[in-house]
Amino acid sequence: MATTSQRVFIESLSDFVQQEVVLRGWVCRMRVLGKTTFVVLQDCSGEVQCVATPESIKEHHLKLEDIVEIVGRVRQEIRAKLGYELDILQVRVLNRSGQHLPFNSFSDVDSVGSETLIEYRPLALRNKVVGNVFRVQAALLTFFREFLTERRFTEIITSKLVASGTEGGTNLFEVKYFDRVAYLAQSPQFYKEHGVAGFERVFETGHVYRAEPHATSRHLTEYYSLDLEFGFIDGPEDVIQLERELLTHIFDGVNKNYANLLSSYREQPLPSMLEVPCWEFSNCLELLKASFKRTDLTDDLDPQAERQLCQLAETETGIPAVFVLGFPLSGRPFYTAPRGTKGAANSFDLLFQGVEITTGGQRLHRREDLEQALQGRGIDPANFQNHLRMFDLGMPPHGGLAIGLERLTAQILNLPNVRQATLYPRDRTKLTP
Amino acid sequence: MATTSQRVFIESLSDFVQQEVVLRGWVCRMRVLGKTTFVVLQDCSGEVQCVATPESIKEHHLKLEDIVEIVGRVRQEIRAKLGYELDILQVRVLNRSGQHLPFNSFSDVDSVGSETLIEYRPLALRNKVVGNVFRVQAALLTFFREFLTERRFTEIITSKLVASGTEGGTNLFEVKYFDRVAYLAQSPQFYKEHGVAGFERVFETGHVYRAEPHATSRHLTEYYSLDLEFGFIDGPEDVIQLERELLTHIFDGVNKNYANLLSSYREQPLPSMLEVPCWEFSNCLELLKASFKRTDLTDDLDPQAERQLCQLAETETGIPAVFVLGFPLSGRPFYTAPRGTKGAANSFDLLFQGVEITTGGQRLHRREDLEQALQGRGIDPANFQNHLRMFDLGMPPHGGLAIGLERLTAQILNLPNVRQATLYPRDRTKLTP
Repeated sequence: MATTSQRVFIESLSDFVQQEVVLRGWVCRMRVLGKTTFVVLQDCSGEVQCVATPESIKEHHLKLEDIVEIVGRVRQEIRAKLGYELDILQVRVLNRSGQHLPFNSFSDVDSVGSETLIEYRPLALRNKVVGNVFRVQAALLTFFREFLTERRFTEIITSKLVASGTEGGTNLFEVKYFDRVAYLAQSPQFYKEHGVAGFERVFETGHVYRAEPHATSRHLTEYYSLDLEFGFIDGPEDVIQLERELLTHIFDGVNKNYANLLSSYREQPLPSMLEVPCWEFSNCLELLKASFKRTDLTDDLDPQAERQLCQLAETETGIPAVFVLGFPLSGRPFYTAPRGTKGAANSFDLLFQGVEITTGGQRLHRREDLEQALQGRGIDPANFQNHLRMFDLGMPPHGGLAIGLERLTAQILNLPNVRQATLYPRDRTKLTP
Repeated sequence: MATTSQRVFIESLSDFVQQEVVLRGWVCRMRVLGKTTFVVLQDCSGEVQCVATPESIKEHHLKLEDIVEIVGRVRQEIRAKLGYELDILQVRVLNRSGQHLPFNSFSDVDSVGSETLIEYRPLALRNKVVGNVFRVQAALLTFFREFLTERRFTEIITSKLVASGTEGGTNLFEVKYFDRVAYLAQSPQFYKEHGVAGFERVFETGHVYRAEPHATSRHLTEYYSLDLEFGFIDGPEDVIQLERELLTHIFDGVNKNYANLLSSYREQPLPSMLEVPCWEFSNCLELLKASFKRTDLTDDLDPQAERQLCQLAETETGIPAVFVLGFPLSGRPFYTAPRGTKGAANSFDLLFQGVEITTGGQRLHRREDLEQALQGRGIDPANFQNHLRMFDLGMPPHGGLAIGLERLTAQILNLPNVRQATLYPRDRTKLTP
């Protein structure tokens, strides 16, 4: 019979009622009830309960997480979640799991330590609570790229091995590059600006590296950055508006395609971001003073202030998110465009559910302005010659932003630590698995 | 008038006939003809000829590659490629290009050295011959991810900072990781296998690093790898069949969406790969002997043999591509599954237009087989403990492949050197730009 010879996915069982099929997957639950053994089989498309008499399958000594092929006949079963069950005709063990596993794919992972979930990643990923984090993360990437491609952005791939840093040389990882020293790129910033001079609109999704010695719940030494940059803007408001539309597209996509999954991490679907307000940094300080008696802040926000501003934004708009624009120029990189003449920068952060998930802004686009900005910081422009000469090749006014993918994932799914949104997190002490 | 205030893309001019619009872009050609000056403006969506009297715009001293805003009125013009021209009403210079550029965005780049095209990447990218290489490359990525997502593969992101190499420790770049040594990942091989135990089907697109001291036309120290791995296969033929369908999907997408562009690099559209044959390695040696008197090959192919096999395949099938399956096991990594008992491996290469663009195969999936394979190569399995213990967590039979994106791009577009398909190539001598 032809249908038995080729393995089918569990989700397609409804096409095979009363027929024999071959399934392959993991044993994820087992129950022996009197004269019946129930084996729940999981594959990448779903799970199904398979039924046999204990004697007929006992020779296989099946246990949880074993990898098996089951030949069986599909039977309609209205009490089953899937609507179908499988009557087992034949079992073949493809591989065995170990005897002593620290948890199972159906364990309550809240009772498993987060380090253990990283140490045993493959097993943790078969657990839906962990696996779905990374399914959502993959969807964020898909919708990010989809939106930008539709808006005429070109995806670029730029080198992560660079001769010097973009922001002055601190927190760089050194690489032994034959007989020289190279560094791991902290950001594709310069390359994406060059990309604007080439393609007008570019994006890149890739790793960036920061040799930050302190491990917090929101810092990693290696993280995945969603970067975009585009030309012919009038100001940072254009970048902000693009991000409102971009995140709304991404969130709509997740709401639509991952509704069930999302509901186990958050009560509400993801909000539209179109109405997220933009507040001037100086106004934010006043608001924080008036509402929370914060008088300690002068030139930057701290994590508490980020939470407080999101709280104020939520009261006003219903959404705990706000763009903060006009940070002090002195605290931003040399390539940042000024905002007016009083020391503010055309640079913004997006705070979302209490955490900064984006930094962006307008950049300087004239070589002479960049040289002056460097000199003003006591840096010899000669150190940036290779970068600066790109500004002679036709550089439009431009701006862009970077979103940390792990942070975005963690915020969306209410995870307290970015490590829970990173398959293989890296920090000062962690280099495996 | 509202329509004048917002910049529009050149491609949308047909919506604004007889209306005033604002365009922004680069001056890519200029011509003064008696009483008329023609300025061709380029943006990310296209190009359009703009017309003015010389006197009306001479104050701006426009030159090639300058960045301008042009306000003008759209006029139908059947002689124009676009069908429209713009009568210039007003010009604003947004930024200046340099006085002495080594080439222009409309130069014949064949007369420009390839090093110069890399040194001046932004300018080169505005030149269609160079820029379109990377537009096609971005499309390859899009269609690769699209196909796999539809087939239930989950995109994963794995660390590029690892504690040891996957293939024994040669050609690794060392990273100074705080007070330790880390290495740049040569491949996501182990991680994608772990991913199979988690998600059954995974893919990753990302950089890999090889400290290869020799610079050839097909090697880089940093390249972009399209990796996939999936479980429950019966043999390497399943991986080969998936690649046939994958490449056919990608090539169809490029043919459909980039037909014009493609035609300036190759005479024929990209072929369907569904009928690409699969030849045993041992048969290939015999074929090479019979057809080309090659008696020098025993345990591997060389670049000439790759070209010769593609030539034979083309004669037989019309397509210069062939899968070669069953390379000697001794030349393949320890995790490779054997093919039969005579020292062959369940490992294949895909040769396409004379160059190997994929390596793939079936892997060992039982811990004891891996330990034995390591011991057989004189490697202590204890060195791979962290990897091996993942095989206790429920590892299906599996296989996968890796495609070098730069090589694939170069082969598709008939580029003689992978550097022409790499925005910022890295080799022993090259660390900038």
